[in-house]
Parts: sequence; C-alpha cells; structure tokens
Amino acid sequence: MREVAIIGVGMVECGELWEKSLRTIWAGAALAALEDAGVDSVDHITVGCMSPGLFVGQEHLASLLADELGMAGVAATRVESACASGGLALRAGIAEVASGLADVVLVSGVEKMTDVDGADATYALGSAADQEWEGFHGITFPGLYAMMARAHMAHHGTTSRQLAAVAAKNHANGLLNPHAQFHLKVSIDDVLASTMVADPLHLLDCSPITDGAAAVLLMPLARAKDLAGRRPVVRVTGSGMATDTITLANREDLARLRAVELAGERAYTMAGKGPRDIHVAEVHDCFTIAEIMATEALGFFAAGEGGTAAEAGSTALGGKLPINTSGGLKAKGHPVGATGVAQVVEIVTQLRGEAGQRQVSGATVGLTQNMGGSGGSSIVHIMEVE
Amino acid sequence: MREVAIIGVGMVECGELWEKSLRTIWAGAALAALEDAGVDSVDHITVGCMSPGLFVGQEHLASLLADELGMAGVAATRVESACASGGLALRAGIAEVASGLADVVLVSGVEKMTDVDGADATYALGSAADQEWEGFHGITFPGLYAMMARAHMAHHGTTSRQLAAVAAKNHANGLLNPHAQFHLKVSIDDVLASTMVADPLHLLDCSPITDGAAAVLLMPLARAKDLAGRRPVVRVTGSGMATDTITLANREDLARLRAVELAGERAYTMAGKGPRDIHVAEVHDCFTIAEIMATEALGFFAAGEGGTAAEAGSTALGGKLPINTSGGLKAKGHPVGATGVAQVVEIVTQLRGEAGQRQVSGATVGLTQNMGGSGGSSIVHIMEVE
Repeated sequence: MREVAIIGVGMVECGELWEKSLRTIWAGAALAALEDAGVDSVDHITVGCMSPGLFVGQEHLASLLADELGMAGVAATRVESACASGGLALRAGIAEVASGLADVVLVSGVEKMTDVDGADATYALGSAADQEWEGFHGITFPGLYAMMARAHMAHHGTTSRQLAAVAAKNHANGLLNPHAQFHLKVSIDDVLASTMVADPLHLLDCSPITDGAAAVLLMPLARAKDLAGRRPVVRVTGSGMATDTITLANREDLARLRAVELAGERAYTMAGKGPRDIHVAEVHDCFTIAEIMATEALGFFAAGEGGTAAEAGSTALGGKLPINTSGGLKAKGHPVGATGVAQVVEIVTQLRGEAGQRQVSGATVGLTQNMGGSGGSSIVHIMEVE
Repeated sequence: MREVAIIGVGMVECGELWEKSLRTIWAGAALAALEDAGVDSVDHITVGCMSPGLFVGQEHLASLLADELGMAGVAATRVESACASGGLALRAGIAEVASGLADVVLVSGVEKMTDVDGADATYALGSAADQEWEGFHGITFPGLYAMMARAHMAHHGTTSRQLAAVAAKNHANGLLNPHAQFHLKVSIDDVLASTMVADPLHLLDCSPITDGAAAVLLMPLARAKDLAGRRPVVRVTGSGMATDTITLANREDLARLRAVELAGERAYTMAGKGPRDIHVAEVHDCFTIAEIMATEALGFFAAGEGGTAAEAGSTALGGKLPINTSGGLKAKGHPVGATGVAQVVEIVTQLRGEAGQRQVSGATVGLTQNMGGSGGSSIVHIMEVE
C-alpha cells in the first residue's frame, strides 16, 4: 500500500450562505486547498455530500463540481454515508492513492442546507435514520439523541451540566476559529437556560443547520515531501470505518456507539497507535451527548467518564486532550457532507502548527471521528506529522 | 497494486417490483452473489444508488443495507454518479481491495424507482442533468438525448432505422435473459411505429423505469484462485473513469461522448488492451442513440459508423462484437444504480461460459461501459478470464 499524505487544506466560512449556491461554496474550498498545496491539476475528485437531491434537487454531483472547477475530464466520485459523508470522501481518496489508481486526489465535502425551509431540512436530515422504522413514525434526530442521552444518564449518572460543558467548551474554541459559524460566548448556564428541544437536550446542546464546504489534497508521501519544501507534511496513518444498526431499537446498548468503537479499533490497529498517543482530536458533536459518547468509544476516557472529563476541562484547550479545537459541529457549524473533511482541515492545521490562538502545543498525532445518523456509521482517521 | 478478481455474481429479476422494498430487492442480489461465491463474510460493502433520497426518502443507504444483511459492523460505502453509480461501486470496491484496505468486498447496485409517480420519477432522474442550466428550464432526458441523436444524424447521416435496430437487437437478447424486465420480440418497424417521445426518439428507443439490484464479490486474485476450484476466475484488468460537462450546452461536439472516450482510453491503457481485443461488451443504452455513440467512443467502430454497424448486425449475437447480450438497459431494464453492476454480472457470466442461449462462444475478454446523465460521467471496466 502506498503511503498517503495531505499537502493542502481549504475551507470556506460556515454559515447561512444565502447568496451562494452549492457549487460556488464548494469551489471556494476546492480552490483554497489547491492553492494551499500549490497544485493545479488532479486525477480524481471525491465529494462527500449527504443529500443534494433533497436539499437542492441535484444528483450527479461530483461531475457537476469537477466541471465547475474547469476540470471536466478528471475522474470524480460522490460518496454518501449521511453525516459521515466527508470522512468517507477521505477514505475513498486514500483508497485511490494507496492503490495507485490515482496519484493526486482532491477530497472534498459540501452541503447547502438553507435552500429549503425548516420542515424540509428536517425531513432531509431524517433520511439518515431508518425511515421505515423511525422517521415515518415521527421521530427526528434530536429525539433519537435524547434517547441516547437518557440511557447514558441512567447507566452512568451523566448530568445535564456535563452535557452543557461540552457546548460551552466548543463555543469557546469557536471564538478562536475565523471559519466558525458562531462567534459567541456560551456558558453552561446559558445552555441550561435555553429552550428544551428533546429532553434532556436543550437548543444549545444541538448543532446548527449550516452551509459550508471543505477540501484537502492527497498525494503519495514521497511526492508530497518533494513539494512541501519546509512546511510539515502530514501523513494519514490510520483509516477505520464501521457500521452499526441504523435503528436504535436494534442496538444492544443505547449508551454505547459501537460503530465508533469498531472504526477506532481499526484505525488504531492500522496506525499502530492507541488512544494515549493522540494529542488532538475532532469528534462528531452533532449533539453534546455525541461528543461524550465518542470520547468514550475512542478510548480517551473509560465508559461513563466522558461527561466528568468534559466538565473537569480535560478536553478544553490546555487540557489533557483538547477536543474540537475548531469549535466542533456545535460552534464551527455542521454542513453535513463537509463536516468530516472540515475535521481533517482542523487536524492538519494543528499538526502543521498553524492553528494560531487555538494551537495545541507540540501536537504531532491527531484523530478525526465522523459519524452518520445516530451512529449507524462512523469513520476514524489518524494523522501524523511526517 | 494487488490484483483483483470477481468470484461471485448475483442479481434479481428486473421489473416493477411493487411488493418489494428497496432493502428486500437489494438483499436478494447480495445473497445471490455471496452464495455464488461460497462466502459468508465480507470486510466492506459498496452500494451504487443514484437517488434513494428522492425515490424512497432514505439516505445513509450503505449502513442500512449492511444491517439488512445481518452484517452491521462492516465498513459500507454508498457511491453516486447518477446512472453510472453501479460502475462507480465497482471502481470503489477495486480501490479497497487493490490498496489492501479491504480483502473481501461486496460490490452492489440498487434502485427502487416505482414507489413514486411518473412525474416525481422524471424529476428524480432529471437531477442527473444540470438542474440550474437544464432541468429547471423544463428539459428532461429524452429531450437531451434527442438533441444528441439529431446532432449525430446531422454529422454522420445516422437514421431512425439504425436507432431502431439497436432496440430490436437488444430486445432479441432480452428474450434469452431470465432476469430481463421485458421478454418481448420487437422489430425495427415496431420501434418506428411506437409513440414519438422526443423527435427522433420513439418510445421503444427509450429504456424503462425499473426496480432492481445486482451484486458481485471481489477479493485478491490469489485468494480467489484458491476458492474458485474448477470454476473460471475473472480478473478486473482495467478501470477507467472520466467526467465531461454535465450541461450539453458546454460540449464542443454533441455527437461525441468525451467521457466515454477518456474512460475507455484509461481502462485500455491499464489493461494493456485495445478495442480489437474485446470479445463481448455491455454498453449504456439508456436510449438507442447512446449505444451507437458509446460503441464509437470505445473505438469498436469509427465515428459515424456505429449506426451502420448496428443495422448490419455486427453487434448482434453471432456478430463481430456482440453488445448488450443481457438485453441492455433497453430490454433487461434500467434500475439506475444497479445498472453498472448488472453489466458486470453479464460479462462475468459470459467469461465463465455460463450464459446459456446467449453465450458468446470463446469470450475471454469483456468490457462494461456505464454512463451518468447525458454523458457527464462514464466508467469503463475490462475483465479477463484468468
């Protein structure tokens, strides 16, 4: 297997981008990654996008975007695994480069979510759950994650205050990220005082609806070293993917994310690393409970201790293991298909030592964990400075 | 790059499968491929599906289907390139096995198109065109391909009778395929007498709306040889993918399929083969003109001679180069996301010498060509008996 490096990253500011179309948003991120890498041609483009069909009435997306970039002719692949589509785009790009089918791959993610009204956006997002067994009976994602949060509270004594601590920490990080959707100081009490959406999840426990795009450029490690000059080269050393039942009703334990556990094990094994080797991580905090469960599933904390760790500041900047230094889905925003790639942009930025005020000092090994639906799929990548 | 073999194939009968859901249809094909291979566990499942969001309100499809098969836990990837989604699922599976990221990959395609009414199906299919520049202005796929047919007629003198010859030939082949949607003898005069849909395309120049699924099993060549016993092992020797502008207005020449030309060149180069080496091919005949243009783009016939060749019987069973022995999209049916995988099922069946009455004698090298939209993407694979 050829070793794969990331040599360029780019993203656009997340938000409600009313005046931009999907293709315009995407092209901004793609061009930024190409410029950052100093590369002007690619062999293959992968695009993670959850539902351009339901959000903007457009499929055949990878070809459309290749053309938008003036690159009609290149190979182009769209991948989808609901909210883990971005992580999957990286996985697909790695497979292309590692196999030798392609040399230079532009990996990207995008979602344009604000061209439909709230009810239609909720329906589109609901298509990440099992529609026949969950969605058609009326439940939406806040309800699904609320059941997981209730189970975690019942099994482990996790508190609403611990959930709120995750949101407060991620909003504090988001203040330091110019690409974040929200630059807003949020306290634990602010979260607890916000509207209840699905008990125990308040409005400020939930990630927002976001337009956005992110991109990274892959090439074989040897070639990346030649091109990078004095800039650090980041290598992808682990890639793990796993599924779980989409339907919560079929899970053995609602307080565990089995797909994250499996994806993490696979990525750690491939990289020859363990949870203690990770210096900085971006995990999928679509709801605050998701971050707590992911940090347990990845082995950063023992089962049931994720909430305590968050409240104690262990995952804050300056803590034992800073998590979601970008602001996470909560504050940076959650443009669904772009999210997994935006996580990689943040980790590469950290490993290069280019994260400015939110830099984790001395970080040389980082991890991303992207998740689909209520944990029906998850993708974990481990990156290291070469 | 590890060499990749196909050791199992399976598909369900195509048609209007009112009483079956997407997941049931898919599982039928997946189980058939696993049984054919004699394998009961896989590392990764790839699923080609164009628009489960618009057709059945379900995204996150690969996880859902892994779970349906009782395999929750495995890695699972959905890919989409409109009507070329199935070919892309094979490409993604090859990259996983060739890179060593996975050993055993179930490659599949599925589409459930009849759960929505005709107008909604037309809208969903239209999302394979550029919605902002084509679809929203009212044109649908028969109109797009009619413009290409008119251009081909104007440049090359192609006739309606030549188009009709493609349909008659494919329906004759479909009579010999138990999985085909239509078992219907159709003459050239029948085609010419059928309703005009978009001049010069008659109803019988068009492929139908179809529910269906197909699957094939990949593994490293060495392992496949051990497992296959006396049965022939089929190796994938070439994989080429390319894009073109989605918008017809941006093409230099409406009478050429540039993505097919590029994808073909890439696959031929990788396999070390040329058009003269191919014994049997499945090409993307969503409309009769598409088959004629594809046979030219792949170098089987010179530009402008595809129509003459079809009318002369060169592409019929027993002809110089039998094309669409399965019945093609025209008669076998066009369950969009499944189509590219169903093409591979047919070629593997031919190369194994198991095609019964439609067997091409002595075929050892075969080709599949799958196409997205009006040629905005295309994927070509070359397979050889080991």
